[in-house]
Amino acid sequence: MSPSPRLTAAGPLHDPSARGFASDNYAGIHPEVLEAIARANGGHQEAYGADVYTQHLQSVFQRHFGDQATTYPVFNGTGANVVSLQAMTERWDAVICAESAHINVDECGAPERLGGLKLLAVPTALGKLTPELVDLQAWGWGNEHRAQPKVVSITQSTELGTLYSAGEVAAIVEHAHGHDMLVHLDGARIANAAAALGLPLRAFTTDLGVDVVSFGGTKNGLMLGECVVVINPSAVRGMEFLRKLSMQLASKMRFVSVQLDALLSGDLWLRNALHANAMAARLEAAVRGVGGVEVQRPVEANAVFAILPRDVTQRLQKRYPFYVWDESTCEVRWMTSFDTTTADVDGFAVALREEMAAERRHAG
Amino acid sequence: MSPSPRLTAAGPLHDPSARGFASDNYAGIHPEVLEAIARANGGHQEAYGADVYTQHLQSVFQRHFGDQATTYPVFNGTGANVVSLQAMTERWDAVICAESAHINVDECGAPERLGGLKLLAVPTALGKLTPELVDLQAWGWGNEHRAQPKVVSITQSTELGTLYSAGEVAAIVEHAHGHDMLVHLDGARIANAAAALGLPLRAFTTDLGVDVVSFGGTKNGLMLGECVVVINPSAVRGMEFLRKLSMQLASKMRFVSVQLDALLSGDLWLRNALHANAMAARLEAAVRGVGGVEVQRPVEANAVFAILPRDVTQRLQKRYPFYVWDESTCEVRWMTSFDTTTADVDGFAVALREEMAAERRHAG
Amino acid sequence: MSPSPRLTAAGPLHDPSARGFASDNYAGIHPEVLEAIARANGGHQEAYGADVYTQHLQSVFQRHFGDQATTYPVFNGTGANVVSLQAMTERWDAVICAESAHINVDECGAPERLGGLKLLAVPTALGKLTPELVDLQAWGWGNEHRAQPKVVSITQSTELGTLYSAGEVAAIVEHAHGHDMLVHLDGARIANAAAALGLPLRAFTTDLGVDVVSFGGTKNGLMLGECVVVINPSAVRGMEFLRKLSMQLASKMRFVSVQLDALLSGDLWLRNALHANAMAARLEAAVRGVGGVEVQRPVEANAVFAILPRDVTQRLQKRYPFYVWDESTCEVRWMTSFDTTTADVDGFAVALREEMAAERRHAG
Amino acid sequence: MSPSPRLTAAGPLHDPSARGFASDNYAGIHPEVLEAIARANGGHQEAYGADVYTQHLQSVFQRHFGDQATTYPVFNGTGANVVSLQAMTERWDAVICAESAHINVDECGAPERLGGLKLLAVPTALGKLTPELVDLQAWGWGNEHRAQPKVVSITQSTELGTLYSAGEVAAIVEHAHGHDMLVHLDGARIANAAAALGLPLRAFTTDLGVDVVSFGGTKNGLMLGECVVVINPSAVRGMEFLRKLSMQLASKMRFVSVQLDALLSGDLWLRNALHANAMAARLEAAVRGVGGVEVQRPVEANAVFAILPRDVTQRLQKRYPFYVWDESTCEVRWMTSFDTTTADVDGFAVALREEMAAERRHAG
Repeated sequence: MSPSPRLTAAGPLHDPSARGFASDNYAGIHPEVLEAIARANGGHQEAYGADVYTQHLQSVFQRHFGDQATTYPVFNGTGANVVSLQAMTERWDAVICAESAHINVDECGAPERLGGLKLLAVPTALGKLTPELVDLQAWGWGNEHRAQPKVVSITQSTELGTLYSAGEVAAIVEHAHGHDMLVHLDGARIANAAAALGLPLRAFTTDLGVDVVSFGGTKNGLMLGECVVVINPSAVRGMEFLRKLSMQLASKMRFVSVQLDALLSGDLWLRNALHANAMAARLEAAVRGVGGVEVQRPVEANAVFAILPRDVTQRLQKRYPFYVWDESTCEVRWMTSFDTTTADVDGFAVALREEMAAERRHAG
Repeated sequence: MSPSPRLTAAGPLHDPSARGFASDNYAGIHPEVLEAIARANGGHQEAYGADVYTQHLQSVFQRHFGDQATTYPVFNGTGANVVSLQAMTERWDAVICAESAHINVDECGAPERLGGLKLLAVPTALGKLTPELVDLQAWGWGNEHRAQPKVVSITQSTELGTLYSAGEVAAIVEHAHGHDMLVHLDGARIANAAAALGLPLRAFTTDLGVDVVSFGGTKNGLMLGECVVVINPSAVRGMEFLRKLSMQLASKMRFVSVQLDALLSGDLWLRNALHANAMAARLEAAVRGVGGVEVQRPVEANAVFAILPRDVTQRLQKRYPFYVWDESTCEVRWMTSFDTTTADVDGFAVALREEMAAERRHAG
Repeated sequence: MSPSPRLTAAGPLHDPSARGFASDNYAGIHPEVLEAIARANGGHQEAYGADVYTQHLQSVFQRHFGDQATTYPVFNGTGANVVSLQAMTERWDAVICAESAHINVDECGAPERLGGLKLLAVPTALGKLTPELVDLQAWGWGNEHRAQPKVVSITQSTELGTLYSAGEVAAIVEHAHGHDMLVHLDGARIANAAAALGLPLRAFTTDLGVDVVSFGGTKNGLMLGECVVVINPSAVRGMEFLRKLSMQLASKMRFVSVQLDALLSGDLWLRNALHANAMAARLEAAVRGVGGVEVQRPVEANAVFAILPRDVTQRLQKRYPFYVWDESTCEVRWMTSFDTTTADVDGFAVALREEMAAERRHAG
Repeated sequence: MSPSPRLTAAGPLHDPSARGFASDNYAGIHPEVLEAIARANGGHQEAYGADVYTQHLQSVFQRHFGDQATTYPVFNGTGANVVSLQAMTERWDAVICAESAHINVDECGAPERLGGLKLLAVPTALGKLTPELVDLQAWGWGNEHRAQPKVVSITQSTELGTLYSAGEVAAIVEHAHGHDMLVHLDGARIANAAAALGLPLRAFTTDLGVDVVSFGGTKNGLMLGECVVVINPSAVRGMEFLRKLSMQLASKMRFVSVQLDALLSGDLWLRNALHANAMAARLEAAVRGVGGVEVQRPVEANAVFAILPRDVTQRLQKRYPFYVWDESTCEVRWMTSFDTTTADVDGFAVALREEMAAERRHAG
């Protein structure tokens, strides 16, 4: 093996001051989380979740989700969702979700291929199910020709940056339970939802009868880590086995658990989410005034969707990374995160105005 | 939500000086790895592997595994194995492995349930396949009634702490390729193997024709991180898709990649492995002299297997964590790791002697 | 074991003269097919498809589908579909289909659970895809987060009793192939389609570039038997293995093959289908004149959909079995089959008129 | 479509008087079964198992397996096994079986790929498990790293032509139940076993606590048809759904059910099996006297295994079809069936003697 330059001595390969609006997954680790990882380091701890940090995490989550809650740390959001949904279903069951749900469009078929689950997807206006929309697929129980609707999965905040009110969640839960179905909440951005609603986490989950939550940490400042929170113990079977066989069991789990602990034992989860949401609101306010830019969807959490001229989008993407959401309508998505600064937002608004002005000159 | 004590202010929950011999998964993060994580922090980086750290990692692994190698970071070893094996097979293929292989005994059926793969397991003496043992299952091609043997999977170092010599690997590769089968190497402890063999990583993989390696980082000092190294590009299909749908795609991948980088861009991988192996050798030497303790298996990497009186095992486990390997034969397993100290080993040997002496007094 | 009455001496348990309009699956075996089964009986024939009847079947299907066609008999339609779709896809691929497709609504999730396939279902007006509808899901190639659209599956005649014209099939094939996708045709009622179109089977399949057909025999007079017809050999991989592992490989296959042979070596397939279609046309004509009965969908094959008062439906179902298609709209489905007689149709029309009259009296 | 010779007018394509010793799957349909199919023909009957023949079948099987038994007709033996085993397990469970079990070696990985099941296979001498052999794999409950042993599957009569005595079955059941495991019996040749044991079917199943039986009809004179007999209702979940999604639900089920009825409502099942067994005994007696032919395994049902010179095997296979069981040991398998005649056996014995004599001349 030939000698090689050691990266360890080389400093960062990237610019730690560069930020954009592409995704809350582009952000790094909150300093308090990194400190927590370091604090859990050293010595030996039992592997696969029998460590003291994972044990401690149980009580941390019980404070947020109630005394019945059991928490299973996993690696990522797809893992949390697919483990949850397997645990809530039999082999012949189906899951009702919004057509725009992450499980339906962004997981490369993992629910179907790994979980063997049929998704019964329903078109929605703003990424939100309602009892009426659920009913489009909630039928056919006992008919062996149809995969059996067993779980309603909702995302909070949604993939479209919208929110379910507590009342809206309650209506879905009541409806689902009334049909002997369970409710799963994909909470990849649940902290943003709680912050926006001004409610404790349990107020729109446990207190309303939500059965299982995929709790997201990564997008809210962790290096890596989500967990399945089983609120209703009778809603699941085989969680430990399903986490393991779904390849979501960390050997050195203490380092996943301590991150979640750092987020939730204090108010870091809320500070981060409030900040990200505030940055989205600031961004919305800044761009709504720009002629030719349309913000059609309500901005309720940390996402802003806007329609821009295609040329403007292309030039602006060279200055700040962000994604086109829908090529056909020229709609783009701007995500804010815990580390977005007001200067980031203001600078981006200036850039947008500049590019829109250039566009008008070009057109004029 | 009621106020709660912030863990962040509370210091570690565990004793950072306590270490045992249960598993290299009980150890924490090597300080150089933790520094690397911090160095990659800050700013925004593209998610899902398009970051500069993951890009850089390609060249790091190519120095070790050759210019054709492509590297796909994943979360854990089961993930690396199941993604690899899916990428190397059709839906109707089977994998030949040792009965003691991790994929066969320690993954809760993930290869079968998630990958849909049939494992054709062969009993072995020391966890090692040979061409002759492979032939016990390598037959039936073209017969639609039999899952088609397509991959031979070997573990290096093995689950029993033994090593394949380069010649032994070469013989298996030649045999497998001669039957149009591919070779997968489960390298959860590949660094320990290289250190013990005194060979560069490629000398017993790339140079011999091994097609795909599951490269293990976690047991060798990472917080979390393994990767699939595709040495032979024509041996796989759909790696990106399979990693994603197998729920092994990290969003903030830079933090997985930079750990592997810290391990492999310099010689940390080798230092850690040499040290762990040396501690196992020291431990073997210390316990071989103890009357009533039998070390039957060769100690070739970082595991020592010994047969002890059951009572001694139980008392000793109260002082140092370790696992019983085989209840029926009273065989125990002692693993060393990068952070095992000579004092740990010497102290453990003293404790063992004490408990054996107590046992003799009790029996006498 | 106590003695028991031998059924063998007991005569039929059912009324061989009773027929309804519930499903072409309610009909029995065409006498020529039963004769063929008897003719293939006696002596020993190689199992699992190596018999002379299955061999002969190849040439029979090649006359219909071209010299490249290979035919794989299976047990049922779900089997034909799921074997086909697996053979046409990689583990990460998806299938675009109409929301009303049998694979999407009537197979209890078999494509998802057994095949691991994601179905990308598109709402349609009459059960028919178009290139424009295909485009709603035909995107995202190369994006690892999205199951990759690889097959467009159409049903001919459709689950709604409608037909694709040859031109409509051609447009879909051209569009699919232009995106490097393959075309699967679910031909559970392909004979009814050919009869209605007045075209040879190949004219709307092979000649237009359809890649694989699930050919239906059961609904057209067989006791049991469908087959996968691979028109484009390069569109599939591993057919024999996938049929076996999908549990669709008959041991005494000669008896499945000879039924398909009896259907297709002469014109029985066409006679049966023409007759069933004619009976549906007769039924439509008879009921269109009945006040209060609406036939909204075009009747193009052997299905008639009508909207009736709920009470009429319930009384009529006591006289003739048939299914309610949509509870919410009071739409019912009447299927005709090879054994439907003109007297059956005329009698049913009388009964319908009687029940409608009773309804008017009741309402008046 | 060009005109073509109609097979229907052409008579059989095969020689109805030719029989060999390859497999009981090479035989055709018993005349009483064919008559039964004809008797169930005509008129309309509800599809998918709601017909009167399938309803009647319940009582037929209850006479054999007890009043609690529920019977689910399926297409083939792999289907019966994989539906059974799925119904008896959770997603994380495993099945203990003999290494030679059909589910392990002859189903192309269907239990693994479709059922997601891990098979824990144990080497046996004569294809038979014992409590001691079960214990080689019956451990690790509660350990999430190990697929959980939940079912013990035994084959009766075995793939090696041997029998479990009632006492041997009882011992396995008691042992399995004692560990909270269930017992599945693969009865592809259960009639041969009952005939050989001289016992009613329930005497070595229901009466001993066997939970679920895959009941084989095809090898015993049916055209096609097996069924899952659920003896212990609490041992399964979701049978109807699993049969459907496993693609084993016949639309015109009456024709599968009436075959099973013809077999079991009288004594046809027993007559056929007694005859096949007697023919195997006659064959064994005839060949045991032939010098150079070794029959090493006990002949207990309808299979004879013998070791022959390879040249003799090859010449003899040109006269009578049969399979080589083990190329390495020159062991062949001769199966008898319900239609094997004494003349077939005697003729085959003569042929064997002739070829052995030729071999000796050649060698001499």
